[in-house]
Amino acid sequence: MSLDDAAQKPHDRLAAWLAEDMAAVNALIRERMSSEHAPRIPEVTAHLIEAGGKRLRPMLTLAAARLCGYGGPFHIHLAATVEFIHTATLLHDDVVDESAQRRGRPTANLLWDNKSSVLVGDYLFARSFQLMTATGNMRVLDILANASATIAEGEVLQLTAAQDLATTEEIYLKVVRGKTAALFSAATEVGGVIAGADEAQVRALFDYGDALGIAFQIADDLLDYGGTSAAIGKNTGDDFRERKLTLPVIKAVAAADAEERAFWVRVIEKGRQEDGDLEQAIALMQKHGAMAAARADALGWSDRARAALRALPDHPLRQMLDDLADYVVARLR
Amino acid sequence: MSLDDAAQKPHDRLAAWLAEDMAAVNALIRERMSSEHAPRIPEVTAHLIEAGGKRLRPMLTLAAARLCGYGGPFHIHLAATVEFIHTATLLHDDVVDESAQRRGRPTANLLWDNKSSVLVGDYLFARSFQLMTATGNMRVLDILANASATIAEGEVLQLTAAQDLATTEEIYLKVVRGKTAALFSAATEVGGVIAGADEAQVRALFDYGDALGIAFQIADDLLDYGGTSAAIGKNTGDDFRERKLTLPVIKAVAAADAEERAFWVRVIEKGRQEDGDLEQAIALMQKHGAMAAARADALGWSDRARAALRALPDHPLRQMLDDLADYVVARLR
Repeated sequence: MSLDDAAQKPHDRLAAWLAEDMAAVNALIRERMSSEHAPRIPEVTAHLIEAGGKRLRPMLTLAAARLCGYGGPFHIHLAATVEFIHTATLLHDDVVDESAQRRGRPTANLLWDNKSSVLVGDYLFARSFQLMTATGNMRVLDILANASATIAEGEVLQLTAAQDLATTEEIYLKVVRGKTAALFSAATEVGGVIAGADEAQVRALFDYGDALGIAFQIADDLLDYGGTSAAIGKNTGDDFRERKLTLPVIKAVAAADAEERAFWVRVIEKGRQEDGDLEQAIALMQKHGAMAAARADALGWSDRARAALRALPDHPLRQMLDDLADYVVARLR
Repeated sequence: MSLDDAAQKPHDRLAAWLAEDMAAVNALIRERMSSEHAPRIPEVTAHLIEAGGKRLRPMLTLAAARLCGYGGPFHIHLAATVEFIHTATLLHDDVVDESAQRRGRPTANLLWDNKSSVLVGDYLFARSFQLMTATGNMRVLDILANASATIAEGEVLQLTAAQDLATTEEIYLKVVRGKTAALFSAATEVGGVIAGADEAQVRALFDYGDALGIAFQIADDLLDYGGTSAAIGKNTGDDFRERKLTLPVIKAVAAADAEERAFWVRVIEKGRQEDGDLEQAIALMQKHGAMAAARADALGWSDRARAALRALPDHPLRQMLDDLADYVVARLR
């Protein structure tokens, strides 16, 4: 670890602490993304996997396993599994969303085609399944199978709930669990299970991952509207232009009068957006305190994540996970 | 079973013998394709799964398990698993191939959209994974994980090998194992494994499914060019128009002189097809005995499938599987 450790982001401290494990995970990922017969597979996978993602999910698995004292080899397999599931999901997401950019680079569906993204995604799902089967642990298989179903169900729900002003906070939470929190919570839970942690600790790891994922996603939603300061920046308004029903919008719609509701119907449901609409949307969210309320929700989930950690052993990794839960919402303060 | 049993197709005799098991499989499929939150999932799934497919793959699993004396409940889960994997693959295939029809009905990607087909396919993969995990049998998980990877790899290989005249019979066989034989052989193998069959029988069940799948696919390839009689019918020439390198074409290309090669480059690689090209392609395949050779290959694989059955117990189901291997190539005689 570097001398100016305290100044590092929690993610970087985790990466430094887990460097040896992460090197093994990366080696396993490179080995398993190869294909004897179809070179297209490693090409597409490498484009995405080596684009400098933060590897947050596999680090959660490694941290959970190490925190619970694991000394065996299978946390590496599980971390690679989680990264493969995540990568497969991104490949399919970019097809579904018709995205052109991801991590600052052209998407695979743009560089190759939708076909390659769909099929290479399927290959990575199958590979992830092989990797977890190698652990011989039926319970981690069960957890990851359930997480995979929740992820896919959340994606379909997001597709059908999109642009529907009737979307409630309850549906929003299901979508968020699907797109973010289900894999976070599975990542931490399987780390505890493979380490043979007791039930209370396994539950705490699940709760931590779940709450962290939800806090992370709500913060993301808020930042897309410029955060609570509502300062319009470079990346502001993407969700608005894509007519996504994110948490601050849902809250503002719930509080809207007839005239405001007509505005939301026009810009979200009908998608007839004009100059000044983004500013008007932000003004309405501010007026009803929707941003402050969403921020309070995010902070609440962050607190729940940190509270869950109390059931876990005192360990430098526990502090880093605590700091991470703080960090994902720190930009909202 | 009906009185005119002998006149029935082997597939129908299997369906009659396994009727009670298949009813349980269908009930489990209906239960597991539901989604509490996303009604789009059962809509899309039902469209495909209730369109009257022959359910050949789940019947192979049931037949293998029963043939080996299985009396437990999990062959039902495995049969549903196999059907879900197959259905997920079809949903993604229709997106990749931009198909408009499947089983005589509009495809899901046409009725809904590509997004729904991709995501519901992912959901069914995850569901299949949950179903097989319920068996608690690590070896069937391993077999089905490997089959899933082979299927996806074969699809990518088909994508990249498409329209490439350098495609060899070896590559063709890998593609065929991916698109057809890997799921056939996994379907029969897991039936034996769950029944606790001995290693020789498990191996025989794998060999049967593998050879049956290859025979089935080569027969399909030939029938697309009118079979060995080369009679041009209603469905003749689909593969040709889609510029697919199927076995009779690969054999004809391998035997082509310079002028013939120029023809194949034009119609397959460049896709500049004109009136009369299909007839010319068939004439070239006949000239070089490519169809007769492909037919001999199909019959050879059918014989291998039947030979593998000899290691299995004497049982009415064994005779039906034998008849099935005969039936898939009978149209070529």
